[in-house]
Amino acid sequence: MLSSNLTIGENGHLYFGGHDTVELAKQYGTPLYVMDEVRIRENMRMYLDAFKTHFGEGSKPLYASKANSFKRIYEIAKEEGMGIDVVSSGEVYTAMKAGFDLGDAYFHSNNKTDEDIAFAIDNGIGYFVVDNREELDMIDQIAGQKGKKQAILLRLTPGVDPHTYEAIATGKVDSKFGTAIETGQAREMVRHTLTLPNIDLVGFHCHVGSQVFGEDIYERASEIMLKFMHECEQEFSVKFEKLDMGGGYGVRYLDGDGYVDIPEAIGRVAKHMKAYCEHLGMDMPKIFMEPGRSIVADAGLTLYTVGTIKKITGYKNYVSIDGGMTDNPRYALYEAKYTVYHANKPEAEKDLIADVVGRCCESGDIIQPNVALPEPKRGDILAVCTTGAYNYSMASNYNRVARPAMVMVTPETSYVAVRRESLEDIVRNDV
Amino acid sequence: MLSSNLTIGENGHLYFGGHDTVELAKQYGTPLYVMDEVRIRENMRMYLDAFKTHFGEGSKPLYASKANSFKRIYEIAKEEGMGIDVVSSGEVYTAMKAGFDLGDAYFHSNNKTDEDIAFAIDNGIGYFVVDNREELDMIDQIAGQKGKKQAILLRLTPGVDPHTYEAIATGKVDSKFGTAIETGQAREMVRHTLTLPNIDLVGFHCHVGSQVFGEDIYERASEIMLKFMHECEQEFSVKFEKLDMGGGYGVRYLDGDGYVDIPEAIGRVAKHMKAYCEHLGMDMPKIFMEPGRSIVADAGLTLYTVGTIKKITGYKNYVSIDGGMTDNPRYALYEAKYTVYHANKPEAEKDLIADVVGRCCESGDIIQPNVALPEPKRGDILAVCTTGAYNYSMASNYNRVARPAMVMVTPETSYVAVRRESLEDIVRNDV
Repeated sequence: MLSSNLTIGENGHLYFGGHDTVELAKQYGTPLYVMDEVRIRENMRMYLDAFKTHFGEGSKPLYASKANSFKRIYEIAKEEGMGIDVVSSGEVYTAMKAGFDLGDAYFHSNNKTDEDIAFAIDNGIGYFVVDNREELDMIDQIAGQKGKKQAILLRLTPGVDPHTYEAIATGKVDSKFGTAIETGQAREMVRHTLTLPNIDLVGFHCHVGSQVFGEDIYERASEIMLKFMHECEQEFSVKFEKLDMGGGYGVRYLDGDGYVDIPEAIGRVAKHMKAYCEHLGMDMPKIFMEPGRSIVADAGLTLYTVGTIKKITGYKNYVSIDGGMTDNPRYALYEAKYTVYHANKPEAEKDLIADVVGRCCESGDIIQPNVALPEPKRGDILAVCTTGAYNYSMASNYNRVARPAMVMVTPETSYVAVRRESLEDIVRNDV
Repeated sequence: MLSSNLTIGENGHLYFGGHDTVELAKQYGTPLYVMDEVRIRENMRMYLDAFKTHFGEGSKPLYASKANSFKRIYEIAKEEGMGIDVVSSGEVYTAMKAGFDLGDAYFHSNNKTDEDIAFAIDNGIGYFVVDNREELDMIDQIAGQKGKKQAILLRLTPGVDPHTYEAIATGKVDSKFGTAIETGQAREMVRHTLTLPNIDLVGFHCHVGSQVFGEDIYERASEIMLKFMHECEQEFSVKFEKLDMGGGYGVRYLDGDGYVDIPEAIGRVAKHMKAYCEHLGMDMPKIFMEPGRSIVADAGLTLYTVGTIKKITGYKNYVSIDGGMTDNPRYALYEAKYTVYHANKPEAEKDLIADVVGRCCESGDIIQPNVALPEPKRGDILAVCTTGAYNYSMASNYNRVARPAMVMVTPETSYVAVRRESLEDIVRNDV
């Protein structure tokens, strides 16, 4: 199976985190997001342990909560000791509602509004990761009005192309994010920041892209960042405490996908950074990373009920399910790959090749084309794997389809973490 | 300007439907969807009048409400006398809440669930547009249980390629929608349907694609459909009342886009269909079409506040606004084109070329690349035009960003049709 939390039960059904997926579909209805709480915690601990071993006290992984943001995930992050990366007042508010200590929260976004800044400062945000000059000045102004000195990191673009696809390649110089080192603009930004009375510049951030498999991306980017930090420390006679290397290692969507040994990769990056700091003659800063996808993706799976199997003689076959681009827009957006199992009989002969498509009135509403499956019938359950990241968080009500419930499974039980939207929810804001 | 409801005020600001867009942004906040109620009604009347003139009594345009579904739009459709096309229980429920008579509603979707079918029958849906055999049998079964005879149309694929882009090209044989005429499967579907005791087959539906500019698409498709209807009438000794030709004519996103004279196009199609019916020796059926985009697109505009202007020396410029792919995912999905104006000074010199990008932590969060604009500053308002269709309806809470309010403007006043989401709304279903 694609990941170790997927198994086959004695009844031949697909099990996820020890639970019969067909039974989960019956109990909670479909479409249904299922999250494996054990796997989430294992993934968090994998990062936490690797950071402790290789970077030591004060360094920390931050859960990039845009991957999947809901109250329960912040409770789990808190229990495990992860920091968090948040990107909006909505994420800040959700974390607050979960009792997460915002002192451990880093506020991202290429465009924080004045309202975001005031809201986050009022609620004790630990750090802003400042993207640009306008928001930097606004943070200084608002912090000053509130009589606070606000800690920030500056987001820089090291100019590294992560060789991942363009939509998630954000470390290169030409990016809507951050300030470029190469052009000299980052140096000017540091100079300006140090003049601001209500800002405490504690370090720097970069992000070389999501779903990174390449071996030396973090090594190359960290050299550029450390060198820049060191030069600024010397030029401006200051000391910077933190370097946040962003996210995130790749996860497996298909059986043929590569596998990243994340603790090993972190160890290698740490070793490289330590050596490079020694070479520069600087102290190693506290290191941060922002895994999102690699915390939650393989902890999630989506269950759908089959509605129709359409065989167009001489053309193609279609299997329509009761969700689609509304709960998972990633094929529509990126032609993202997914593994699909027939949950009732995953091991039966795959005698049908079909596009698995959603219920929306839109031809582009495809979950995955050309899937080999045991032929399903109306009412059967399909499971789409590795949907724990960027599915619920990107879901819409297109076609006024209600967003699915999210259920957590543990070895002992299952429970609702996000309730299914009701028809009343859909019209709630209609006047 | 791009459309006649866009004007320049004496203060130099962009006006929409007679209202100062900068003032609307101040009054209601941003991001803000603005809908011109007059234009919506004009567009509906354009179709209604053309149908009355060219197709006569009993024929009718149906508003394809997936383009923009909210209570107020169904009230307007009701007042104007449009029928509606709905695609989910959520749309049915919204129309009900608006007091729309569901007898004039046509329920689409390639995958109606058992729950959708029961809900719609319970609430007196006029017609199902049946996509496939499984749902046909389920409608027959559920209608029987409820002691009802349900009127339906069968959705067929005439095999016409509309030469629009693939994601919205749904009339060709290889489609997740409908049943193919060419393969003989449609004929078999009719034969089976006529044996079902609780089904009243009143006609047929096809959809040759959205955003159609080509002149003869409807003419070609209607020939195939009429010929099929006529053959079935003869073979099965029945009479079919309705032919629904789907949607929809193209709208203008850019100044350079073509312009469709919709009444003239409808007149031409009607003339062609009448002649073809005479040629076949059949009575002209009642004709339906499903305009969505061409009812609401140019009646809508989105207002954003500028957060930052980033000039990357030697590379590119970025203007970040306080919305993005969360309220308008169409560039991310289709690289859709839009016209963007600087609302504060639309007529000033366009001295900046920039990508207008959203606030999401995602490089693909682009509203429009390479836009020529008078250089804005933080706090200025940008207006993105022709956003009345497939913007609010496709909006998400990605990054836990709240969905915007929608405000209606009339010559006399403005009013909220959809309230802005609150932080409380965002966590409402989190347990």
